[in-house]
Amino acid sequence: MSAAFRAAVLTVSDRAARGDREDATGPRLRALLERFGATVTLADAVPDEREVIAAALRRLAAASDVVVTTGGTGLAPRDVTPEATRDVLDREAPGFAEEMRRRSAAGFPRAVLSRGVCGTIGRCLVLNLPGSPSGAAECLEFVASVLPHAVKVLRGGLADCADDPAAGDGTGAHHGEHA
Amino acid sequence: MSAAFRAAVLTVSDRAARGDREDATGPRLRALLERFGATVTLADAVPDEREVIAAALRRLAAASDVVVTTGGTGLAPRDVTPEATRDVLDREAPGFAEEMRRRSAAGFPRAVLSRGVCGTIGRCLVLNLPGSPSGAAECLEFVASVLPHAVKVLRGGLADCADDPAAGDGTGAHHGEHA
Amino acid sequence: MSAAFRAAVLTVSDRAARGDREDATGPRLRALLERFGATVTLADAVPDEREVIAAALRRLAAASDVVVTTGGTGLAPRDVTPEATRDVLDREAPGFAEEMRRRSAAGFPRAVLSRGVCGTIGRCLVLNLPGSPSGAAECLEFVASVLPHAVKVLRGGLADCADDPAAGDGTGAHHGEHA
Repeated sequence: MSAAFRAAVLTVSDRAARGDREDATGPRLRALLERFGATVTLADAVPDEREVIAAALRRLAAASDVVVTTGGTGLAPRDVTPEATRDVLDREAPGFAEEMRRRSAAGFPRAVLSRGVCGTIGRCLVLNLPGSPSGAAECLEFVASVLPHAVKVLRGGLADCADDPAAGDGTGAHHGEHA
Repeated sequence: MSAAFRAAVLTVSDRAARGDREDATGPRLRALLERFGATVTLADAVPDEREVIAAALRRLAAASDVVVTTGGTGLAPRDVTPEATRDVLDREAPGFAEEMRRRSAAGFPRAVLSRGVCGTIGRCLVLNLPGSPSGAAECLEFVASVLPHAVKVLRGGLADCADDPAAGDGTGAHHGEHA
Repeated sequence: MSAAFRAAVLTVSDRAARGDREDATGPRLRALLERFGATVTLADAVPDEREVIAAALRRLAAASDVVVTTGGTGLAPRDVTPEATRDVLDREAPGFAEEMRRRSAAGFPRAVLSRGVCGTIGRCLVLNLPGSPSGAAECLEFVASVLPHAVKVLRGGLADCADDPAAGDGTGAHHGEHA
């Protein structure tokens, strides 16, 4: 049902980048994305440096349909993943971040501290996820079901009927679902 | 109860602007706004071009209390309505966009893809709605009840008691409702 | 359990700044913050002037762990607190604003008009609250329980396990809660 798409996982963590400690979140996100039909690249971890993160995002976006980051979205002094991401986004897609924060906060109030942003670089969708293995996996699961559709729309091969006022609601389906 | 206000509907769609297909959403939004007390102008549809959308927004805002757009808020490569809108907003009002996305996503998960922004140009409120007739109408209905109040506050004829710390809560009503 | 933190309350209101009317919201927020373990400074009220608000925020942030503002977040022509706040923020933390608006709107639909932004200036967290005493108090209560944790993370004395992919989930607790 869901066409294959190319995903990349970028871990942002000083400790993981130095090799001081193993990245526990990246492999978990890879397994989850594969379950949703993606072929997944696990990129080398990068430190919490704005320019380094931005450069990695640009490079990964050029070869991927979806890039997810994990880490660096909190309030710690070195957390700058959202700022680095915004530096390289063409268009923001705040609905993904709002949905992940809201649903995560329902069970874990500290999720409101997460500052992640989402959006597009060219035809690639970028999602900032929190750092903890369970928090990142949970957030990704909240939006994973719409990723295959998002990828199709971004590729331009699919007129997004749900966003074209001239497309009509031919089938009577909710929001112009495709007949 | 609700004073009349002037609204404009702007359809953003390459196909509708070319006249290839009829705009199904604009007329539906007009009927809905009229039900909430507005006199409504249905503007000529514009293509998905950032500068063209921005110019139309400026022109309509100068003669309206509320401008709603429909279309161009998704992830398709040519969708740039949010970027064009942000180009001309004086102040953002993210609460409208958050509310529409959240409530829409409750029944239609793909609503998280909608990137619409809301805010003000001078004394006019601008709302980006999705493109499909049912999606746009639903989103507008989620916030329509507060539009007459928003218009009064924007006109400056009403001190917004709910946002003035010196206004007090004289009546004991929630959030300083007007006595 | 919650280490003491330093908070400041800034009332933004032309009328309160002129002394035309007493500030009813500031004292209420002070009492609430004290209940959550803060030592609180009630700053002199400032008028709805972007540069004046921005300067007050910078000054208060230099000596506080948390600064809350009240007023100037609505749609009235002179409401510019969010713009002044964004002028001086280093990093945005949209989760606080989303959470306050959403929960407030559940009982008070006009809360969607609130345009407040939240984020950090250096190691200080800044939250824009609405103006009415009950609205401001309610919004602060929605996020107050996470403030002591936010302050610890901002001070850098606590690695935020919930945002470090290399921290693991050692305890098996949700989102890497600290063992």
